[in-house]
Amino acid sequence: MTAAILPEIALSAPEVRQRIRRAELDGPTAGLAPGHVQANLMILPKDLANEFLLFAQRNPKSCPLLDVSNPGQTLLTGLGEDIDIRTDTPRYRIWQDGKLVAEPTDLMDWWRDDLVTFSIGCSFSFEEPMLAEGIDVRHISQGCNVPMYRTNIPTRPTTGLHGPMVVSMRPLKAADAIRAVQITSRLPSVHGAPVHIGDPALIGIQDISRPDYGDAVEIRPGELPVFWACGVTPQSVIQTVAPPFCITHAPGHMLITDLLNTKLAVL
Amino acid sequence: MTAAILPEIALSAPEVRQRIRRAELDGPTAGLAPGHVQANLMILPKDLANEFLLFAQRNPKSCPLLDVSNPGQTLLTGLGEDIDIRTDTPRYRIWQDGKLVAEPTDLMDWWRDDLVTFSIGCSFSFEEPMLAEGIDVRHISQGCNVPMYRTNIPTRPTTGLHGPMVVSMRPLKAADAIRAVQITSRLPSVHGAPVHIGDPALIGIQDISRPDYGDAVEIRPGELPVFWACGVTPQSVIQTVAPPFCITHAPGHMLITDLLNTKLAVL
Repeated sequence: MTAAILPEIALSAPEVRQRIRRAELDGPTAGLAPGHVQANLMILPKDLANEFLLFAQRNPKSCPLLDVSNPGQTLLTGLGEDIDIRTDTPRYRIWQDGKLVAEPTDLMDWWRDDLVTFSIGCSFSFEEPMLAEGIDVRHISQGCNVPMYRTNIPTRPTTGLHGPMVVSMRPLKAADAIRAVQITSRLPSVHGAPVHIGDPALIGIQDISRPDYGDAVEIRPGELPVFWACGVTPQSVIQTVAPPFCITHAPGHMLITDLLNTKLAVL
Repeated sequence: MTAAILPEIALSAPEVRQRIRRAELDGPTAGLAPGHVQANLMILPKDLANEFLLFAQRNPKSCPLLDVSNPGQTLLTGLGEDIDIRTDTPRYRIWQDGKLVAEPTDLMDWWRDDLVTFSIGCSFSFEEPMLAEGIDVRHISQGCNVPMYRTNIPTRPTTGLHGPMVVSMRPLKAADAIRAVQITSRLPSVHGAPVHIGDPALIGIQDISRPDYGDAVEIRPGELPVFWACGVTPQSVIQTVAPPFCITHAPGHMLITDLLNTKLAVL
């Protein structure tokens, strides 16, 4: 058996990153390097980074930080061995004045010495133990994106950053909803326990069949919609200030770390 | 029954703060407003505050943040109703260039509009559930301060802040040590699970009978020393940079919040 004939699913986290670095992989990362934490990215100039760090501290469920770099730091030593933020994510989004201007596969033409990288926990890490216990995670079994909604739940603002919480939704039978509360409570660094269960109107969602981001999923009789704080919240909040320059990952194209999902559990 | 004849122990958190504000109480806060979170304080000018916020993000066990204010903010709305940081702690310490220059009971002569208040979790919040389960917390039963030690465990540094972790130690029977791991794992915002159990030499402590801070306590046959990351770590780290100006609480003279210890549990 040689590396060349290994299916992608069997590659280790460092092997996947090497292929991404060589631009041999540039697609979505769902299912790659199973068991390993994948991170959302928010890369900001230093001045705005200080404000964003405070926002994250005040909103840990929406914006659970796995790691924050020094300004200009390219090797993310807090997340694993030889992780170069400029090359090791399959696709990035470059934003100028709030507008998307490019979707490169590396940052070699865009990197600046004042940039701070925020690596933010992602729901992949809590869906894995849900699937392992046989819970049907609907958007996965339907093969689409998770549905996400703007709510009327305010975030705790900073001087410059504010806006409503965005939530993701998974429909679950009551017993599975209870187990999902237990599973995700153990994982505060990837959004933690749900923020709401049941009536969507109580958190300002008018039509559950029309998500603001992602795709609608079927809610079967007897199922409850269960809502978690979503990593789209910080992206949405940053968009409201339309910074002169920032970088994110492209949706679904995450940074694969050496951290293990199981190690994120507090208990 | 009138407020005047209530013993201090029976006062609510807001009542205790009112007495502190009027300087009718200026002593240690241990045992006051049972069930309520008490906070360590670190008050820093804005420039150093950004660096300290990053240090705390990288060292959540040593520096678990309960709340971070805006610059100049005097009412700590994240911690309760009508909490004025300038008056509601029994005693403060004023530091200039790393030297202690005053120990006032309020900050009215010292407050500045660029000051950011960090409220940091404290071990009182996890000792309470240990005591409630009948675990002997030795420094409490001996009526002294908890023993604290400098270790050889490095903190994750920032550009300007670095230094070893300081730990607190509680000697426990094996069964109690196991239960203490469970209890404190549920409380990541007040230091979380222990960082070490057993041989002190393995974390660089040469003589367990001579703590670097606090008082030595008896370790009985069959007991294991159990070590937790300690809120003295950030104070120790800040001292190494000797900032021109900063404020802390006086040891044992904590800020009493409206938050409930039980609510800090993630599960």
